[in-house]
Amino acid sequence: MIHIDDLETPVAVVDLDKLEANITGLQQYLDKYGIVNRPHIKTHKIPEIAWMQINAGAVGITCQKLGEAEVMAQAGIRDIFLPYNIIGETKLEHLIRLARRIKISVTADSAFVVHGLSEAARHTASDWDPTFALPVFVEFDTGLHRCGVQTPAEAAELARLIKESPNLHFAGLMTYPSNVDTDPFVQQTKTLLQVEGIAVESVSGGGTPTMWQAHTHSEVTEHRAGTYVYGDRNTIAAGAMRVKHCALQVMTTVVSRPTAERGILDAGSKTLSSDKGGLEGYGLILEYPDARIYKLSEEHGFVDFSQCAHQPEIGERVTVIPNHCCVVSNLFNQIIGIRKDTVEVVWPVAARGMLQ
Amino acid sequence: MIHIDDLETPVAVVDLDKLEANITGLQQYLDKYGIVNRPHIKTHKIPEIAWMQINAGAVGITCQKLGEAEVMAQAGIRDIFLPYNIIGETKLEHLIRLARRIKISVTADSAFVVHGLSEAARHTASDWDPTFALPVFVEFDTGLHRCGVQTPAEAAELARLIKESPNLHFAGLMTYPSNVDTDPFVQQTKTLLQVEGIAVESVSGGGTPTMWQAHTHSEVTEHRAGTYVYGDRNTIAAGAMRVKHCALQVMTTVVSRPTAERGILDAGSKTLSSDKGGLEGYGLILEYPDARIYKLSEEHGFVDFSQCAHQPEIGERVTVIPNHCCVVSNLFNQIIGIRKDTVEVVWPVAARGMLQ
Repeated sequence: MIHIDDLETPVAVVDLDKLEANITGLQQYLDKYGIVNRPHIKTHKIPEIAWMQINAGAVGITCQKLGEAEVMAQAGIRDIFLPYNIIGETKLEHLIRLARRIKISVTADSAFVVHGLSEAARHTASDWDPTFALPVFVEFDTGLHRCGVQTPAEAAELARLIKESPNLHFAGLMTYPSNVDTDPFVQQTKTLLQVEGIAVESVSGGGTPTMWQAHTHSEVTEHRAGTYVYGDRNTIAAGAMRVKHCALQVMTTVVSRPTAERGILDAGSKTLSSDKGGLEGYGLILEYPDARIYKLSEEHGFVDFSQCAHQPEIGERVTVIPNHCCVVSNLFNQIIGIRKDTVEVVWPVAARGMLQ
Repeated sequence: MIHIDDLETPVAVVDLDKLEANITGLQQYLDKYGIVNRPHIKTHKIPEIAWMQINAGAVGITCQKLGEAEVMAQAGIRDIFLPYNIIGETKLEHLIRLARRIKISVTADSAFVVHGLSEAARHTASDWDPTFALPVFVEFDTGLHRCGVQTPAEAAELARLIKESPNLHFAGLMTYPSNVDTDPFVQQTKTLLQVEGIAVESVSGGGTPTMWQAHTHSEVTEHRAGTYVYGDRNTIAAGAMRVKHCALQVMTTVVSRPTAERGILDAGSKTLSSDKGGLEGYGLILEYPDARIYKLSEEHGFVDFSQCAHQPEIGERVTVIPNHCCVVSNLFNQIIGIRKDTVEVVWPVAARGMLQ
């Protein structure tokens, strides 16, 4: 048996008991309210965890990149939502190759994207299956100001275009994150579409910070959460999880104590990432909650221990809950699954860093 | 032939002509002043580029992690400097395994680290080669306030300890970055050591932003630069390179234009990283230098095009020079080497994400 303390640091470990409890907990909550669960695998990028989510009751998964979807399809997953505008000949060909093998749905927020999808779908229909229809959701913006159409009128117009486009199927509406503006936007869009007899089959919302409010959005039929499997400092700050739920932790070593206040960890921006997400510092040190990771270079974390009642020695191992687990797991080739402090599994982060 | 425009985005490409010119340029400069070149491979983590650097005249390489050194040793490189405090039984054993195969030197900034190194070296000497001596540099701090002893007196004391420790060899002094405080620190330390007859064989400095001032530090005998091979927006801001020298570029696609001002790129924090390094925004768009990448989510870049004379269409491909190339190359499984816009080589980023 390999003990967690025998692992070279820095290393990202996942407590399997906590991981399983997180997966079960959200599934039970969504089941209670009849909301479809379609977890986002961008957080872990590990096929076995995706299967754990499906086996717990998820209808399928969400991926953010074609490369992720490719890895998950190759692991046997048959139902993938890719809420991204797929653009360009190479990517569209890749999407369609996937669509011949599995059920894959995508989003669009412009006529340009719809035209590209339809052309690619038409092409594959003509030489493979004449009934082929690619499911396409309309993405709408409820305040993140990222992608998405800006008004219900635009949403309705795009839904019509999808419906009329050869070899596409209008699958519904999608946004991120679900919030108080979601229901009104959906209702207004539905009203506009109703007069033309266009139904909105599904409304897909998402987010971990607000996951326990999913049931308050009556129009949302499906929820996509990613971060909830691991948890992180951002999720704690949002009040959606507690420290004890955080399954992913980074084990690091204090490699230097150059001054009475300063300590240096062997975890920098290539381990914890530079993501702050509005937080102070770059992570929470469980053994020294009053310490502050105030700066990172690539392989060093700068820590101010001056506010701590006692301070670590050089060589001491400490545990960091990172600000944002999704970008941290993306920095490792492998994640170590542990149970009661011993190694149970070593998972390659199979869908990371893909050129797709 | 694969044209750069046929690659799926986002993709990190390296212009091989520029890469070669960057490698040659720094080598010629250091040769002119008789400074040993020991480039830091943390920027690229690609064995073939490390060999290009050695073949151009570098004495060996610098690595920041044992895992990087392991990959480079397996690619045939025989002289590696690891300027890091190696701590803990597992890591020390790993270091010593490497030291049996190649010439590897390390640093220390505390007696704790020196004792660990000596114990590990003594152990391998006793069952392998009684004359074995691990070269150890003393790291000193000249203002970065990361690792390193704080005063010449501490440096001299640690040098003495290394010299007296079984199976260690005091190899010299090391700092990062080289700056105006470097020479005085070295001179004071040398004075303290001289009375005991301890010579300082080598003084290793480093840094890309100040690389063209390496010759102004008369005490520095060796220079370690990493970023210079690729170049980035930070290096341009420091005045050490120009846009035309930047070999690494991220090709991205405009996937959405939700409003008149806003555009969304398919490159987010998992492509460009969240590193800012004091800069405004997350990268320079070559085709739209007045655009501002003002926010990133994991796979989306938020761009304000309002200050641009003309604006891109959805589907347009644009080229981003990232803020910090070292963390960007670390996010890709492969880097695409191009020459005159066609693919010449696909390099796995072999030494990234290692659990070591």
